[in-house]
Amino acid sequence: MIKVKSTLEKDTADDEPQLRIPTYNDVLIAHERIATYIHRTPVLTSSYLNQLTGAELFFKCENFQKAAAFKVRGASNAVFGLSDEIAPKGVATHSSGNHALSLAYAAGQRGIPVTVVMPRTAPQAKKDAVIGYGGTIVECEPSTSSREAVFAEVVAELAADFVHPYNDPRVIAGQATCSKELVEQVDDLDIVIAPIGGGGMISGTCLTLSNIAVNVKIYAAEPLNADDAARSLKAGRIIADDAPNTIADGLKVPLKGLTWHFVKNHVTDILTASEEEIIAAMKLVWERMKIVIEPSSAVPLATILKNPEIFKGKRVGVIITGGNVDLDKLPWMKL
Amino acid sequence: MIKVKSTLEKDTADDEPQLRIPTYNDVLIAHERIATYIHRTPVLTSSYLNQLTGAELFFKCENFQKAAAFKVRGASNAVFGLSDEIAPKGVATHSSGNHALSLAYAAGQRGIPVTVVMPRTAPQAKKDAVIGYGGTIVECEPSTSSREAVFAEVVAELAADFVHPYNDPRVIAGQATCSKELVEQVDDLDIVIAPIGGGGMISGTCLTLSNIAVNVKIYAAEPLNADDAARSLKAGRIIADDAPNTIADGLKVPLKGLTWHFVKNHVTDILTASEEEIIAAMKLVWERMKIVIEPSSAVPLATILKNPEIFKGKRVGVIITGGNVDLDKLPWMKL
Repeated sequence: MIKVKSTLEKDTADDEPQLRIPTYNDVLIAHERIATYIHRTPVLTSSYLNQLTGAELFFKCENFQKAAAFKVRGASNAVFGLSDEIAPKGVATHSSGNHALSLAYAAGQRGIPVTVVMPRTAPQAKKDAVIGYGGTIVECEPSTSSREAVFAEVVAELAADFVHPYNDPRVIAGQATCSKELVEQVDDLDIVIAPIGGGGMISGTCLTLSNIAVNVKIYAAEPLNADDAARSLKAGRIIADDAPNTIADGLKVPLKGLTWHFVKNHVTDILTASEEEIIAAMKLVWERMKIVIEPSSAVPLATILKNPEIFKGKRVGVIITGGNVDLDKLPWMKL
Repeated sequence: MIKVKSTLEKDTADDEPQLRIPTYNDVLIAHERIATYIHRTPVLTSSYLNQLTGAELFFKCENFQKAAAFKVRGASNAVFGLSDEIAPKGVATHSSGNHALSLAYAAGQRGIPVTVVMPRTAPQAKKDAVIGYGGTIVECEPSTSSREAVFAEVVAELAADFVHPYNDPRVIAGQATCSKELVEQVDDLDIVIAPIGGGGMISGTCLTLSNIAVNVKIYAAEPLNADDAARSLKAGRIIADDAPNTIADGLKVPLKGLTWHFVKNHVTDILTASEEEIIAAMKLVWERMKIVIEPSSAVPLATILKNPEIFKGKRVGVIITGGNVDLDKLPWMKL
């Protein structure tokens, strides 16, 4: 059963106090702040995929980022932006994915404590990675109510700074450094396309491009099985699904106040792809580009292949968001 | 049962007429000749693997090369070095691996015919790739005698130019452009290590480094299951095994006259790794570096992990030779 939360009001009410919308100046500060802790990731091209799509594709490879995820950008900006007075209390978040690893990495770099609330059912590899970076894991049951209760306890006890995976101006300003690099690396882009889940990467992309590359169109790519952002854009308000099921596990979460602000103002369209299309695009990238990308990262290419008329003849920046995947369980082996 | 051919004489006698040893000038000419048709591949590093090994590792990523294999360098040099009179008759070779794809790619770029003799048991994916580049496949039985008989017929009928996978001065000069780029990209290397099968890549590495980076030590890495080159170096003469069995399928072939010349004169040592060690190193590179490499490419890292005392504190160039692997049958899934 799909439960739909239907009001923007409800979502923004989660985020007290009212969050400040980050500016491009925040992005410039973020980029300088995090430069030492992140990679300026390469942009790869594939003549095969160009031929296949009729477009010129420029893949910004955040799978080569620290912790193999763009989320290190936002997490590092939050962690290194803390004052010396506040920092020693550490940071905390709830995440079973790349934000958990990324925040643990960033906190480890600064040498401050980090606590992550994770469902006890999260993959052991993710737990090990958080611990490997020096983080502490507090387990909750795999339900929203348990996660919220446990997380509230953790924050109350530790007085740690909460770094939300995406609905946080520091995080969005950090993610925005990715498309800043991309436009420095590639001239005359017509389009940039990135996956959309909670909307942190897309919001950062909007923030940068609407300031320094206003003619570049921004598309978001979303799994059809978790197309709440696409439906939100059509409806003109946030629609949030409860626990959608998709192989692109980084893209299950709903938009929130801040990210909805950027999406509704700057995104041209949100395209969707089926599970089969996502898996086929993922395998195609592995085969042809010889890089390991996670399912979420394949959604943009899947939508490009499905909508050639939008991209043909265009110079298209494609954000490859990460490379964390279980090599023992590859999705095409189930097809 | 392992059959051992025990004389250098026998091997050089295969190669009539006596082959010219390529010079560094040939490498310079080759690099200019092939520049348009190959990628100047990137050099990647991994702080995790540096920490693990105590060395500074610089991975020269020929998995990102055209046809996903360094062999495009030598094949392109042979194909584009043909005179306009000879070229239209095309080129031919016998190979079930990356040399077949690479020669087909290069011939396709020049627009000349290419015929590849392949065992009928070769993977369909390899056959499809050769055909995809415009090549013609002539099948033989999976035995040396059948291959030689069929290949002799093909060459006699077509009068095509035979491009040996490695025992050819044009091929070695082409492969030598890889380490030329590496020393241009990375300063002050102490060691370069590359896999060894027939010895084409290692010979090219020797040719370049003995001319422009004489202080760099050269190590070769070989599967323990196909350690004929290591035994050759110890014995002081070519030892060739018949059909050794290893997951690193590019490394099964024996040294020949030209490659033995370079190995015996310039290689410091040949290190070996077991099948399990090769597979573990391959998986480690996929997991940590997020790149797709084939088993042969993992042999150098496997030997570095096994012999830390040689590499600790050193700046080490590691040649990643290719990325052609069947994504539906990954070797660690059998472990």
